[in-house]
This record gives sequence, structure tokens and C-alpha cells, in this order.
Amino acid sequence: MEIIKREIKSIKKRTFPKKICFEPIGIIKTPFKSLKGIPIQFYQSEAEGIIQIYPKHSPGLKDLEGFSHIYCVYFFDMVKLPVPLQSKPFLDDKKKGIFATRTPFRPNPIGISILEIIHIKKNLIKVKNVDILDKTPILDIKPYVSRFDYIKAYKMGWLDGKVVKKSS
Amino acid sequence: MEIIKREIKSIKKRTFPKKICFEPIGIIKTPFKSLKGIPIQFYQSEAEGIIQIYPKHSPGLKDLEGFSHIYCVYFFDMVKLPVPLQSKPFLDDKKKGIFATRTPFRPNPIGISILEIIHIKKNLIKVKNVDILDKTPILDIKPYVSRFDYIKAYKMGWLDGKVVKKSS
Repeated sequence: MEIIKREIKSIKKRTFPKKICFEPIGIIKTPFKSLKGIPIQFYQSEAEGIIQIYPKHSPGLKDLEGFSHIYCVYFFDMVKLPVPLQSKPFLDDKKKGIFATRTPFRPNPIGISILEIIHIKKNLIKVKNVDILDKTPILDIKPYVSRFDYIKAYKMGWLDGKVVKKSS
Repeated sequence: MEIIKREIKSIKKRTFPKKICFEPIGIIKTPFKSLKGIPIQFYQSEAEGIIQIYPKHSPGLKDLEGFSHIYCVYFFDMVKLPVPLQSKPFLDDKKKGIFATRTPFRPNPIGISILEIIHIKKNLIKVKNVDILDKTPILDIKPYVSRFDYIKAYKMGWLDGKVVKKSS
């Protein structure tokens, strides 16, 4: 990308941040009004939702409708910290390290779902495959690009044999 | 997963956060000491790096070595905010909405790279396919699971015809 110097901090003055703060860029409206019944994974969900990007960020959505899918990055705001670092995941009865699971209960409760774009109207992105609680704060939207993002993972750890193959 | 009630906030008292703050869970050491020469995408990089997870989070790494790939979620700490909402990406000469690009210059400068695990020793994850500046703060690690994460994206917008197919 075109890097304009004034957009970059001085590497000489670089210090390691102890705290990293973000402001939500929007909110997602979904059919899931409580924590019960939310699909475990986006790839198993047919539910639709609407990402409302704050109008001040709308110009950033230009050209996004050309893509079929997005990474939706969000904040699991219902998680109370600190979380245990090992816990039983949904698909197993033995405790796993939380970085080896997709649990929302992580030190930094960041969620990532790959959602299909139905359409974009102004600042509203209508999406499919939603597995997110209603009114969840959105941190970022990135285009999903199969050629970058499809990796032939050859090991899937404790999940091997536990996940159902996609029907499509 | 097993949801323990005390880990969840009360949904009745839920308020929308204006600011969301995280603490890094570690740091990545890479060969890229300056912004020049960093690969544009992880899938084009053969470079290796070491994610140093802070020892207090080490128990969360249990079972991760069973997976071949991870999502590494990190903070582009060199980006100066605010950023323009449209900019010319690396692969085109016309301005695009930044949510339709992978530029680090985004309102919330969150990066996601899919990295191959070489090995894990204690709190150190040796990884491949690195496209990240040395000493970048790490926010989260999640297992990459092809069956969840491989989506047949059928539209790739302005990137169509611009990305080189993976050689593997």
C-alpha cells in the first residue's frame, strides 16, 4: 500500500504498549438476544444479521460489496475477566489450553467470524452465517480472500474427528 | 464450551462500551526490523519468527501444538491515528475503502496473519509465513481449522486478477 510518512510513528521512539485501546466502529444486530442458542461456529449458521457501521466510517466501506465474504472482528463484551487459561471446550470433555480453542473466554476476548455479504446499503452490511450475540461491538471488517486465507492445515489437534464436514 | 455463570456479565446490566482495552499477551520476534521489506501477505512469506507468550499465559498454550496453523491477532503499533478512510492499496492505483483492503492503516489497527507452527517450547511458538514487524504486540492466538475457516469466496472485488495463485 502507499505508505505516507506522517501516518507512521517514529520507529526510534517506539515503545511497547502495556494497554491497547480501540473504539468500536459499529454494532451488529442479530437474532440472538441471549447467550442461549447462538450457533457454535459461523460455518454452521444460516442466520442473518446487520452490521451497522458508524456513519463517520462509511467512506471506508467503498468497494467492499465486490467481495462475497468478510472477516468480522468483534469484542465478546459479556466475558468477565480474568478467565481460566484452560477449560473444557464444547466438543470435548477434557480441559484444553484456551489458545487451542475458539472459546470467547480468552484473555483478550476478540472474536473473528467469516460472514457472507448479502448486500451493503449506505453504512449497513447485511450478512449471513452469523454466530454473534445481538448488539455486539464491532472492531474491524476485512475482505476475506480465498487465495490469501485458505490454508491447507494438515493438523487439527484435539478437534480431529470432532468437526462435521461442511455439507456444501 | 462449558460456560460458568460467574464468567459472564449480567445481560441486564449490559452497556455498550465506548472504549475497549486489551493488554498484549506477548510479542513476536521477526527478521523484519524496519517497515521496508516486510512481505505484503503472510501467504507469500517463508520467513520465520518466534511468538513469545508471557509466562503467565503459558498454560493457555496446552494442546496448541496439535494444530498446524494459527490465527495470530496483533496490533499494528506503528500506525498513527486517525487514518484516511480511503487509500490506494499496494495492488491498485485507485483509492479503495479501507475496509475493502488489508491495509494496516485502519481505524482499529488490528492485524490477522495465518502462520504455520514449527514447534512450541514452553511459552515460545516458532512460526513460519511471517509478515509482521519485529517486536509487534500480540493480542490473541487461535487455532486455524480448515473445516471452519475455508470458505469458497465467490467474489474477490477489486483484487480479482491481481493476486497470484499460491504455488503449492
